[in-house]
Amino acid sequence: MFLAKVVGTVVATQKDPKLAGLKLLLVQHLSLDLEPTKSFVVAADSVGSGTGEVVVCATGSSARLTEVTDKLPVDAVIMAIVDTLEINGAIKYSKSPEAASVKS
Amino acid sequence: MFLAKVVGTVVATQKDPKLAGLKLLLVQHLSLDLEPTKSFVVAADSVGSGTGEVVVCATGSSARLTEVTDKLPVDAVIMAIVDTLEINGAIKYSKSPEAASVKS
Amino acid sequence: MFLAKVVGTVVATQKDPKLAGLKLLLVQHLSLDLEPTKSFVVAADSVGSGTGEVVVCATGSSARLTEVTDKLPVDAVIMAIVDTLEINGAIKYSKSPEAASVKS
Amino acid sequence: MFLAKVVGTVVATQKDPKLAGLKLLLVQHLSLDLEPTKSFVVAADSVGSGTGEVVVCATGSSARLTEVTDKLPVDAVIMAIVDTLEINGAIKYSKSPEAASVKS
Amino acid sequence: MFLAKVVGTVVATQKDPKLAGLKLLLVQHLSLDLEPTKSFVVAADSVGSGTGEVVVCATGSSARLTEVTDKLPVDAVIMAIVDTLEINGAIKYSKSPEAASVKS
Repeated sequence: MFLAKVVGTVVATQKDPKLAGLKLLLVQHLSLDLEPTKSFVVAADSVGSGTGEVVVCATGSSARLTEVTDKLPVDAVIMAIVDTLEINGAIKYSKSPEAASVKS
Repeated sequence: MFLAKVVGTVVATQKDPKLAGLKLLLVQHLSLDLEPTKSFVVAADSVGSGTGEVVVCATGSSARLTEVTDKLPVDAVIMAIVDTLEINGAIKYSKSPEAASVKS
Repeated sequence: MFLAKVVGTVVATQKDPKLAGLKLLLVQHLSLDLEPTKSFVVAADSVGSGTGEVVVCATGSSARLTEVTDKLPVDAVIMAIVDTLEINGAIKYSKSPEAASVKS
Repeated sequence: MFLAKVVGTVVATQKDPKLAGLKLLLVQHLSLDLEPTKSFVVAADSVGSGTGEVVVCATGSSARLTEVTDKLPVDAVIMAIVDTLEINGAIKYSKSPEAASVKS
Repeated sequence: MFLAKVVGTVVATQKDPKLAGLKLLLVQHLSLDLEPTKSFVVAADSVGSGTGEVVVCATGSSARLTEVTDKLPVDAVIMAIVDTLEINGAIKYSKSPEAASVKS
């Protein structure tokens, strides 16, 4: 899986019938310093994520194993919204601003 | 999935029998600034897309899950034609020129 | 799928038993200008292609869906020999030299 | 599979229900010189690995074939903790410091 | 599939139970000039290959289709040992030194 930041939304009416109702988001890969990179994908949303959130995306056939993507022609899915990232013993990211300030 | 622009067509008569009737298009990857990159793939078309359109492509085994690609030896499929792209709160692309001018 | 040029042959006697009789070719990725790149793969041949031909290759589990690669441990297959490539409205490649000179 | 070093932990409460109880770790790709590279992924842990350990990760659908990841929407799993790496005839890494000093 | 050279061995005792007895090798990608590149993977061995040999590796779900890797959590397998490579009409590699000197 990869870490990404939700940065946008794709609207498409002309599409495979099975995709009706599925939310397609633009997610930008993050570096280990949590900086957005130039790389991005279109991912289906399975967890109600919104712009600006840091998420975990699964790709390939595994992207079809969430409840909302079963048997759909999608190869990337947001399957978790990150609360906290701990890297080399320090909290590098926390969704709640208060907690983020409590770094180790 | 990735964002791409349809830029060409592949014609092939000598091919796996199951591919008969399938439209194979050349699609060029787009950057997050919606500029074409050097990267491209050959994708099966499942939605009737044409040259110049911005599309969403699924890859891998998921590319076989549209109605027209079921069980075919294809690893990329155009599964949606983009109407609108909203990135960081602004409409960055709209298929209809009129709507595109109404940026936020 | 990707566009490639057939550039060589792999001969291997010590291999998984299921691969007996399968032709393994070296195919070099082509750029959108149809120039060979540094990237190449070993692909199973399902269409009787030969050195110098421009082909379309499928990868991953889809590579096992041609008649000759069913259930084999292969992740890339040549599934079509290109007759014509039309890019941005012009014929950029044609297998028959005569037709190639008739560009739009 | 790829060699990686465990460098962090991902905590996420809002996620696909099937992921409950699964440990998600940040693992950084290693070069052949065993130096960490800029590339990293989020991998499920199936072997009880901890920060600083050198591990082997499987990706794609194969990541769902360990006991703890069966049918889960994950595309990367730590499936082994490395004891020893022998490269070109020399022991380049050993988990136990004593053994590491006995290089050939 | 890709061409690679076997350069090392991975020893791991703490691993997914299904991996017991499987040989894990380090294989380095080769360029079309047959030079080792910086890229490498850990691959399961299905053909009894040894250090220094030039091999063909399959990846993804196809890596599980050899006799020794059935249903295992592995995403790369050595499925053939190369005898001869013919590129652009010339023998560029031959496992037996005598044959290698007979270039076209």
